[in-house]
Amino acid sequence: MPIAPSVLSELRNVLGDRLSTGESDLALHAASETFHRAPPPDAVGFPLDTAEVSRVLAICNAHRVPVIGWGTGTSLEGHALAVRGGLVLDMMRMDKVLDIRPEDMLAVVQPGVTRETLNTELRATGLMFPVDPGANASLGGMASTRASGTTAVRYGTMRQNVLALEAVLADGTVIRTGSRAAKSSAGYDLTALLVGSEGTLAIITELTLRLHPQPEDVAAAVCAFPTLEDAVTCVAQTMQMGIPMARIEFMDAMAMRAVNMHMGSAYPEQPHLMVEFNGSPQSVKADAESFGAIAAENHGQGFAWATSLDERNRLWAARHASYYAALKLRPGATGISTDICVPMSELPAAVAAASEDMHRSGLMGDVVGHVGDGNFHVLMLLEPGNQDEIAIAKGVAERMAHRALAVGGTISGEHGIGVGKRGLMDAQHGAAWGVMGSIKRALDPNNIMNPGKLVPDLN
Amino acid sequence: MPIAPSVLSELRNVLGDRLSTGESDLALHAASETFHRAPPPDAVGFPLDTAEVSRVLAICNAHRVPVIGWGTGTSLEGHALAVRGGLVLDMMRMDKVLDIRPEDMLAVVQPGVTRETLNTELRATGLMFPVDPGANASLGGMASTRASGTTAVRYGTMRQNVLALEAVLADGTVIRTGSRAAKSSAGYDLTALLVGSEGTLAIITELTLRLHPQPEDVAAAVCAFPTLEDAVTCVAQTMQMGIPMARIEFMDAMAMRAVNMHMGSAYPEQPHLMVEFNGSPQSVKADAESFGAIAAENHGQGFAWATSLDERNRLWAARHASYYAALKLRPGATGISTDICVPMSELPAAVAAASEDMHRSGLMGDVVGHVGDGNFHVLMLLEPGNQDEIAIAKGVAERMAHRALAVGGTISGEHGIGVGKRGLMDAQHGAAWGVMGSIKRALDPNNIMNPGKLVPDLN
Repeated sequence: MPIAPSVLSELRNVLGDRLSTGESDLALHAASETFHRAPPPDAVGFPLDTAEVSRVLAICNAHRVPVIGWGTGTSLEGHALAVRGGLVLDMMRMDKVLDIRPEDMLAVVQPGVTRETLNTELRATGLMFPVDPGANASLGGMASTRASGTTAVRYGTMRQNVLALEAVLADGTVIRTGSRAAKSSAGYDLTALLVGSEGTLAIITELTLRLHPQPEDVAAAVCAFPTLEDAVTCVAQTMQMGIPMARIEFMDAMAMRAVNMHMGSAYPEQPHLMVEFNGSPQSVKADAESFGAIAAENHGQGFAWATSLDERNRLWAARHASYYAALKLRPGATGISTDICVPMSELPAAVAAASEDMHRSGLMGDVVGHVGDGNFHVLMLLEPGNQDEIAIAKGVAERMAHRALAVGGTISGEHGIGVGKRGLMDAQHGAAWGVMGSIKRALDPNNIMNPGKLVPDLN
Repeated sequence: MPIAPSVLSELRNVLGDRLSTGESDLALHAASETFHRAPPPDAVGFPLDTAEVSRVLAICNAHRVPVIGWGTGTSLEGHALAVRGGLVLDMMRMDKVLDIRPEDMLAVVQPGVTRETLNTELRATGLMFPVDPGANASLGGMASTRASGTTAVRYGTMRQNVLALEAVLADGTVIRTGSRAAKSSAGYDLTALLVGSEGTLAIITELTLRLHPQPEDVAAAVCAFPTLEDAVTCVAQTMQMGIPMARIEFMDAMAMRAVNMHMGSAYPEQPHLMVEFNGSPQSVKADAESFGAIAAENHGQGFAWATSLDERNRLWAARHASYYAALKLRPGATGISTDICVPMSELPAAVAAASEDMHRSGLMGDVVGHVGDGNFHVLMLLEPGNQDEIAIAKGVAERMAHRALAVGGTISGEHGIGVGKRGLMDAQHGAAWGVMGSIKRALDPNNIMNPGKLVPDLN
């Protein structure tokens, strides 16, 4: 049901010409980075402050209009698609860094600030915000989807790095969760409840983020292994010894071939680990030596260290280029990236099974992973618009998810649920999925907040 | 209203002679470590497994009987007092370590396992569970109250160290939250919602806990500072440089006097920091040297390092004895420990204001704190049963909490809310306290789970 003209007029009273029903605005807010598609929303609003968000939500709640938050539109599972129409709230004009408190190691930002913008602002403070999902995503979107990335093994995900939130509930009530203190035992952890709730409970209007010291020294290395098992054993032993890794990434033989083709490099086409250590020059040296010894015990070969910024950038460029490099393996292809996370001991079998399944299904692609978390992605290369291949790829992804559950893992390590994985929520959570639905119903009784996502159908 | 005989008989069908209405059992489950008091519960049950907990809750829900979870009874704010009567569920017979998976760095335990028991079981694995609230508390209780302690600055609180839970809801439904994977972005973070919910949403029946490597090497030190400001500046600079401290504790001049009296030591009676570094021998040495330089810049004096286990134990004995040592400052006294947490930059002013307020109010006591978290306790020494002094001490504690809120802090860093701080919840959370109430009502519509605690009154 489209938004009634009288409701649009009420919304226009709040947003003025920052409420758009123009075709190009609607189309821009209907796209997604992946194959997920939905009709465009009925309208797009661009609020400037919390008070506007509150007034907009109160109007939408009164008239049962769906409201969907929007950041940079870089989610991979179609989180922000308006599957039931309604109003998309594009939060990117709330883009101020409100406060940086180096002595308290925290920053207060509006949701439209991107992680790169924040880190640029932080440069002179000696601090940084480490969560890095790859895309230069908005911090509001990263909180809503509980994003993580290559540095989670050391610094945690958005779960660990959001200290406090301001958010607006369905009826327009503005709440504050958490505090500026490093810890608290004062009631339900509503911050953690909102982080990862994918816009189904509230619109985030302000974030207080935990900052970390920029490392004094950094060393990175790449190392080949004969098998994935060897590589994973190396990582597990390193972690059990308490050697802190800032990043530890896995790339399979196919991913290395893609990188070689893309960058003109000559890495051996076998499984690789890429590792980074942060700290004081002494601790980085000690950690790197310890890691080198463990890698050698596990048949690591061709260890190449990079300590200068240039060398490190070249090394990590291989990992960062991995997605676009892989696309070249099948010219003209589009990619589908899967995402599961399993206990470390289950990782070799999970990667092997996923890779085999993909090849048996007649698809090509590669495997990369945040191996320190037990999190990996199979990137499958599909002919754009080929529905048969999409269906086959969905089958591979679904079987990966079920295998993850069978060994105590999760259907999504970091890409979230969106429209892509909602069908798997019952399998993962059982009765607890119903609890999520009860909480949703309690806070959003009219089901206007990103309806059709994350929780069981309410109406 | 006491439990009806017919309901007791239903409960006895489940628990047999593990349902007690004996006076001594009731009295044992009416006490608290502090001055908080309540009438005894109507009955105490000792379940052996999840199925029993589920059947008991279904019965209690049907008959509107309050159910209060009980661990070691060591909470400081009267969390487990049966303020509305009902059934106390003593979980201490569910005390099995169910699984230890060193390769996945996790352990699965029943709620009645204490942290010391778990660490004894872990000894041979090279891993440990680091959260240490002082008391040898049950892990179920520690999760329910979001406990932390001296090691939170390095390892986090229960928030960061509970990976997954099994819990029973008011109606007897058994749910599982979280997974064995290191991270997940699959829906609402129900694990984080239950951790710290103080038994108002569910009874925890199983915990999956994150383990950490036992440090290869440990060094500890004690150091005097002319002022608290110097000590806090030293800690803030250390943290901003990314030097990882395993513990960093503050004790004021009065606390040092108490320790000297208690242990026959001769520490100067001025503010002290006690610090511990964990890691490889090289990293510990490097970290300790860096810290020593920062301490010297901030007028640290009389630095004493302890690297052998004996020396370290002697050094930490001073901190651990602090509570009992302080009691000797006023022979026969009972102690009330307050607990707030503020942003680091606000810590010196918050400690000074609290200390002054205590002295101006005519009370004596000392200040100790987990300074790396901005969390501190004023221990006030009261004549047992002197209601005037209790009232004055409550006033000091309440003003501390309001000052914490005024600077963006929290009314409780780690002791929780219980009956002691519920009156401050509205001041901290405002509209968000109402959200906590909505969640409670959604999951426990009959308000049987630890009623009268944590959330606004529902009935």
